[in-house]
Amino acid sequence: MSAPLRLHYRLRVAAGEDAERRAGHLAREQTLEAPEGIVPREIEERALGRVESVAPRDDGAFDVAICYPVEATGRELPQLLNLLWGNVSLQQGVRIERIDWPDELLAAFRGPAFGVAGLRGLCRAESRPLTATAIKPLGLAPRDLARRAGECALAGIDLVKDDHGLADQSWAPFRERVLAVHDQVERANRVGGGATVYAPNLTGPADRIGERVELLAEIGVRAAMVAPALLGFDTLRSLAETSGLALLAHPAFAGTLAGGEHGFAPGILFGDLFRLAGADAVIFPNAGGRFPWTYDDCRAIERRLGAPLGELDPAFLMLGGGVDAASLAVWVPRYGPDTIWLVSGSLYRQDDLRRAAAEMVAIVATTPARPA
Amino acid sequence: MSAPLRLHYRLRVAAGEDAERRAGHLAREQTLEAPEGIVPREIEERALGRVESVAPRDDGAFDVAICYPVEATGRELPQLLNLLWGNVSLQQGVRIERIDWPDELLAAFRGPAFGVAGLRGLCRAESRPLTATAIKPLGLAPRDLARRAGECALAGIDLVKDDHGLADQSWAPFRERVLAVHDQVERANRVGGGATVYAPNLTGPADRIGERVELLAEIGVRAAMVAPALLGFDTLRSLAETSGLALLAHPAFAGTLAGGEHGFAPGILFGDLFRLAGADAVIFPNAGGRFPWTYDDCRAIERRLGAPLGELDPAFLMLGGGVDAASLAVWVPRYGPDTIWLVSGSLYRQDDLRRAAAEMVAIVATTPARPA
Repeated sequence: MSAPLRLHYRLRVAAGEDAERRAGHLAREQTLEAPEGIVPREIEERALGRVESVAPRDDGAFDVAICYPVEATGRELPQLLNLLWGNVSLQQGVRIERIDWPDELLAAFRGPAFGVAGLRGLCRAESRPLTATAIKPLGLAPRDLARRAGECALAGIDLVKDDHGLADQSWAPFRERVLAVHDQVERANRVGGGATVYAPNLTGPADRIGERVELLAEIGVRAAMVAPALLGFDTLRSLAETSGLALLAHPAFAGTLAGGEHGFAPGILFGDLFRLAGADAVIFPNAGGRFPWTYDDCRAIERRLGAPLGELDPAFLMLGGGVDAASLAVWVPRYGPDTIWLVSGSLYRQDDLRRAAAEMVAIVATTPARPA
Repeated sequence: MSAPLRLHYRLRVAAGEDAERRAGHLAREQTLEAPEGIVPREIEERALGRVESVAPRDDGAFDVAICYPVEATGRELPQLLNLLWGNVSLQQGVRIERIDWPDELLAAFRGPAFGVAGLRGLCRAESRPLTATAIKPLGLAPRDLARRAGECALAGIDLVKDDHGLADQSWAPFRERVLAVHDQVERANRVGGGATVYAPNLTGPADRIGERVELLAEIGVRAAMVAPALLGFDTLRSLAETSGLALLAHPAFAGTLAGGEHGFAPGILFGDLFRLAGADAVIFPNAGGRFPWTYDDCRAIERRLGAPLGELDPAFLMLGGGVDAASLAVWVPRYGPDTIWLVSGSLYRQDDLRRAAAEMVAIVATTPARPA
C-alpha cells in the first residue's frame, strides 16, 4: 500500500454542527459521492477518503487531516484538482492549509521545465534576483509597445513580458505585437550585449494556443506568460511538457480561490499547485502594493516554490502588483535570491524610461537578497 | 461607437475608503493597469473602463456600474473572463451582480450547440422536465458501472452521466468504462425502445481530450460532461463549437467564484458565463440538498439560462447535489420545464435500482412543472 495523499484542512463548522461528522462528509464528497451504506465494503476500502484526525483550534475552527488514495487522482491534474477542490468548492468554511504529497503522485508530474536554474540560464544571471517589467497599456499600438520593450531591454531588465490584458485585440494583435516586440528586444540584446527575455501573453483561445506556440518557436521567443486559472491548470502542464518555453504563470482569475475562509492557503495554490502544473515563475502581488495580500502570504508562496517537492525543480516568485522602483532597496532584502522583481507603472511614470529601468536594475543588482 | 460592456458590481469598501475612488481604480485595474497620468489621453479614451455610477446601498455596500469597451475583450473568452475577473479576483469585496451584454460581443460566441431544443431532441422529450442519474461510485469496475447505467436506461431515465470523479483511474479507465457503459445503454435503448443518452466525463488532460472526443464520435456517444473551471472555460467553448457533443457543464472547482462577498452572483457565473461558454445544461446543487445554496440562487441561474441573450440558445438547469427521489413531487413544480432532475444516491439506496429509477421517471412525468 503506497503512501496516501494527505490534506490538512482548516474546517469552520456552523453552530451546532459536529466537526467529525462534517469531516466524514467531506472525505465522502470528494471521493465516492454516495451516501453511507450503499457502497460495497471493498469499494469503500479502496476509494473512500479517510479522516485521520479532527482537532479543535484556538480560533474556533478545526484542524482536519484526511487521507485520499493516490489512485483516486488518476495521476492526472484535472482529477487531482477535482479531488482537492471539486464539489467542496461549492460548500463553505473549508480551507486547504497544507498537503503532504506522496512521491508516487509527484512522480506523475514534471513540474517546471526550466525552473530556477533554467530561467537563470536564459537570463544569464547566476545567483541574484531578476528584474522584470510588463509592457503596457492595453490600447497601445505594437510599435509603441515594442519601443518600450526595447528601452527596458537596453537598460538590462531580465524579463520583459506583455501586460496580462494584452490578448489579440485589434489595437495590438497577437502576431503583430509579438513580432514587433521580439524584434526590438533582440535588437537591444545585440546592441547592448544583454540577454533580455521576452515573454508574450499566451493566454488565449484553447484552439489557437498551438499555432501561437509555433509562431514563438519559429521566431525564437523562449518564454511566455499564461494564466492557469483562465486557461485551465492542465493547459499550463501540457505547455510546460511540450512547448519548449519558460512559463510565467499569472494569478488572474485565481485570487478568489485563495482569498478567505474557504479555499486554498496562498502557499498551496500559488506555490505547490502552480509549480506542480509547470510554472517556472509565479507572478503574485507583493505586500504593500495595490492588493491586499500580506508579506506572510508572499513568503508562504516563496517557501512552497522553493521547498523540496519530489524531483520537481524550484520556481521563481515574481513579485509585482504595484511595486515601486524606489521601494526595492527595502523589499529586496526581505526575500531570497530566487525572486523576480516586476516593476512597471513606477518606471513609466518617469520621463526617461531607459534610465528609470537602469536604475531599477542597479538597485536589484547591488542590494543583497535575504540569504537563501 | 458600439454599445459598451456594462458590469454592475456590488462593492464593499473598507472603513474610510472612498467608493468613487475605489471604483475608478477597479475600472483602471481591469483595463490599462497603469497609474493615472502616464497614459496618453487618446489611449485612455480608447481602452480605459469608465465608471458610470456609484450609489450607496442599504447594506452599507455600493452599487457600481462600469462600462468597458468591447474591443478590450478581444472577442475571446479567456480575455473576456480576464476583463471580468482577472486581477480583481485578487482584491476583496467586489461582486459582479449583473452584466449588460452588448449584441456585438455576444455575436462572437455561439453558446450552446444543442441548447434546450437540441437536447430535448436527443432525449425525445418535447416539453417535460428531464431525468438524469450519475453512475457511481469511484472505485467500481466498468462492468458494474455499466450494469447500473443499463438498469437506469431500461427505467427510462433520459440522461445517464458518469460521476464527475470518474476520470481515468485504473479502477475504471476512461476507454474501458465508456465502451462498457455505452454498450449497456444502447442495449437498453434497443430492448426498451427508449432514448437514454449517456454522457461520459470528458474532464481530463488537455492533450488527451481530442482523442477522447474521437472515441466518442467513433462509437456514437452523443453527449459528455465537462467541468469548465477545471478545464478552462474556453475548452468548453471550443468543444461546443467542434465536438458535435451535447455538453453538460459541472460546477466542480467553480463554487469559490460565486460563494460570497467577492466573486460572481451565481446567476452570472453559472447562468450567463456557463451558457456563453457553450453549456447545453448546467449542473448545480439544488437547495435543500448537501450544499448551502438557496432556492433563490438556483432560480437566478435558471432565469439566466433561459433569458434572451443575443442569438444564443437557452440551456437546461440540471439540479442535483443530494436531490431525494421522494422529494421530487415537491421540487418539480418549483422550477420550469427546462429542468433536468439529477438523482443518484437516493436511487442506489433502494434494493431494486430499476424500479427506483422508474418511480422517479414517473414522478417527473406526472408532476407539472412551474409554467414557463
